[in-house]
Amino acid sequence: MSSPDLASPGLEQQIRELTARSRAASVVLGEVDTATKNAWLLRVADRLKEARETILAANTRDLEQAAARNISEPLLNRLALGEDRWTTMLKGLADIAALDDPVGRIEDLRERPNGLQVGRMRIPLGVIAIIYESRPNVTIDAAALCVKSGNAVILRGGSEAIQSNVALGEVLRAAARDVGIPEDAVTVVPTTDRAAIDFLLRSERDIDLVIPRGGPGLIQKVSETSRIPVIKHDAGVCHVYLDASADPKMATEIAVDSKLRQMAVCNGLETLLCHRDAAGTVLPQVLEALHAEGIEIRGCPETRKAFATARPASDEDWAAEYLAPILAVKVVAGMDEAIEHIRAWGSDHTEIIVTASQDHADEWLRRVNSSTVGVNCSTAFADGYRLGLGAEIGISTSKLHAFGPMGLDDLTSRKFVLRGEGQLRE
Amino acid sequence: MSSPDLASPGLEQQIRELTARSRAASVVLGEVDTATKNAWLLRVADRLKEARETILAANTRDLEQAAARNISEPLLNRLALGEDRWTTMLKGLADIAALDDPVGRIEDLRERPNGLQVGRMRIPLGVIAIIYESRPNVTIDAAALCVKSGNAVILRGGSEAIQSNVALGEVLRAAARDVGIPEDAVTVVPTTDRAAIDFLLRSERDIDLVIPRGGPGLIQKVSETSRIPVIKHDAGVCHVYLDASADPKMATEIAVDSKLRQMAVCNGLETLLCHRDAAGTVLPQVLEALHAEGIEIRGCPETRKAFATARPASDEDWAAEYLAPILAVKVVAGMDEAIEHIRAWGSDHTEIIVTASQDHADEWLRRVNSSTVGVNCSTAFADGYRLGLGAEIGISTSKLHAFGPMGLDDLTSRKFVLRGEGQLRE
Repeated sequence: MSSPDLASPGLEQQIRELTARSRAASVVLGEVDTATKNAWLLRVADRLKEARETILAANTRDLEQAAARNISEPLLNRLALGEDRWTTMLKGLADIAALDDPVGRIEDLRERPNGLQVGRMRIPLGVIAIIYESRPNVTIDAAALCVKSGNAVILRGGSEAIQSNVALGEVLRAAARDVGIPEDAVTVVPTTDRAAIDFLLRSERDIDLVIPRGGPGLIQKVSETSRIPVIKHDAGVCHVYLDASADPKMATEIAVDSKLRQMAVCNGLETLLCHRDAAGTVLPQVLEALHAEGIEIRGCPETRKAFATARPASDEDWAAEYLAPILAVKVVAGMDEAIEHIRAWGSDHTEIIVTASQDHADEWLRRVNSSTVGVNCSTAFADGYRLGLGAEIGISTSKLHAFGPMGLDDLTSRKFVLRGEGQLRE
Repeated sequence: MSSPDLASPGLEQQIRELTARSRAASVVLGEVDTATKNAWLLRVADRLKEARETILAANTRDLEQAAARNISEPLLNRLALGEDRWTTMLKGLADIAALDDPVGRIEDLRERPNGLQVGRMRIPLGVIAIIYESRPNVTIDAAALCVKSGNAVILRGGSEAIQSNVALGEVLRAAARDVGIPEDAVTVVPTTDRAAIDFLLRSERDIDLVIPRGGPGLIQKVSETSRIPVIKHDAGVCHVYLDASADPKMATEIAVDSKLRQMAVCNGLETLLCHRDAAGTVLPQVLEALHAEGIEIRGCPETRKAFATARPASDEDWAAEYLAPILAVKVVAGMDEAIEHIRAWGSDHTEIIVTASQDHADEWLRRVNSSTVGVNCSTAFADGYRLGLGAEIGISTSKLHAFGPMGLDDLTSRKFVLRGEGQLRE
């Protein structure tokens, strides 16, 4: 390991040195050209292939230790670097190498009446800290996106993945040395000491942005204690609203796709809302189809009238991000009540209307202020790849800086660039 | 006054109720059409004219009380609602009414291979708190920009301006009632109790953004204690760099304009850097012209060789935002040293190169990552009006969300809007 092993007593000082090295590396990295950054991405892929046995051995040790501590099955699944995940990780590097580099791009170029040319040029943010749980493949994905957008990155994964993450971090840094990028452009925090997170969150001088990815506990802790700007990737309590004019077949397909194919992810359907006028016609067949696929239906009284198998829903169901084969269902008087319900219980994530009315579609898109708002499509499209961003670092649920799926551009800022010929104030 | 007078004992509860009313108003305001928001702006101007005597009387009381407390002359100047400032305030309202409303605008519209139409629609941020010092005209300017962009605003001005601000707040709220906008869209915090700021900064549920405008003490306090995202409007330690090829006449005009016409504002010139090869030729005449205008020159040893009248500069001078007739001057070996100096001592605000070299101009624009970077023009152009934004709420010195002069668009976020015909995940 080239990163020093951090011991608790001197931890604060060690984190301070670590973040200062990241800051220094970010200044150099900010000027590195696209070809070199792409060479690094491809070199990481090559080195991953070379180090495959070492990395998988580290991952196996993490898995064994996690199993010995009786960690839950889904968590073990997320921790495992299986064949599929390995292939996806390698493909991700090539995909990101193929994306346009936002750094240096000039946008909104125009000429002022005095002849001054004004544009906005994209620049890196500087140093980004990612605090995440379990999935070691995030180490590679997040580092790839941050470095491609010219940012140094500090990676702090879950304690149960520490050996996998340190092994992956070595590959990322070795590839940096190979191509002449400062190795401190990527740092895996090499300790499971939780105090390290507190010290990171106080390093406002050397870190520009913190992105927490994980459960509600992690998000809340980071938001409350950070002195650095935070972009939250919070829960997804996503809604599909069946309008009175919803086509039954389309409604069924969209509900089934949004629930079943997105079961464990934040853009999955959690609450289905249905216009009262469709409760006796469209709703029963939609719920029948979901139920046939093994989904448990929890409904309001009107839902239970339309679909007798439904269990009663409580307020907890309206707030739930199940990530499981359960669906909350509510019949509403119309769009106003649907929107009120979403404002009261939703998480500003993804809300879809199924309607045959152009006016209702327009009204929905205008009035619902979640990060992804759609008409007649699956909730699955709240996703950076599917929206055409090329890749995503996550899905922001806060409105500042970025809202919704975040791609490479969202890891940059814009400076004003001015070209004059001696223009003065007047 | 329709806003209740807040007393310290129940202050926390009162601030909580105040912010909750702002949140509720923001939901309604977010759906108000452009015509109504413009009607409000023009109605505010009419009501200001009607209430002129009352407002100026309140301002006179503030000024008298400030004078009795021996408040400094510049601060008294900023507090006074003189004829010029009054006219500018009224003109600002009409100007903002004439600007495009960003809310509802769809950008980056494109069609995905599966036929899904994807765009990004601008939406208000929600509730914005502005914490500022002295100038009561900010009360009108900031409210106008926030409401035009669909945001409810909470205004907390300096204690010495409280009577002026409360009187202006009454006008803003009365005009809201006139046109049918919720009056809680604009709230002037009606207390000088400093604890009110602490309570506001903890209202993360009801406030989406805090913008502090004022001295370094205010900015630091807000940044350190806020649980809400903050966009800082920090000091401007701005630089002009005279390249070896700088035209002497242009260099002189730009330095004089940047220093003298921007003396008291954050985009004024504070440190002049000069390439060594121009130190014996261009620099003396530039400094002579500045000195003739009454500017005190503080220079490095090489500067003092070129211009004997200069006093010696210390590290404090490199860090200083003078806002006064003093200029720090340093001779450097070339662009690398100039950029290193700016990184070490600057505030990421505004940096201008004067050069005849296209290559050096390009390199400067690419490498200097301050919020405004320019070639052959005055620092005065780091300004929302002069850059063509129509107006500005301030100049952000942090890279997240907005960097540099902030206009109406920067007070909004963007949601993804999707139009499909039944598209599913695959």
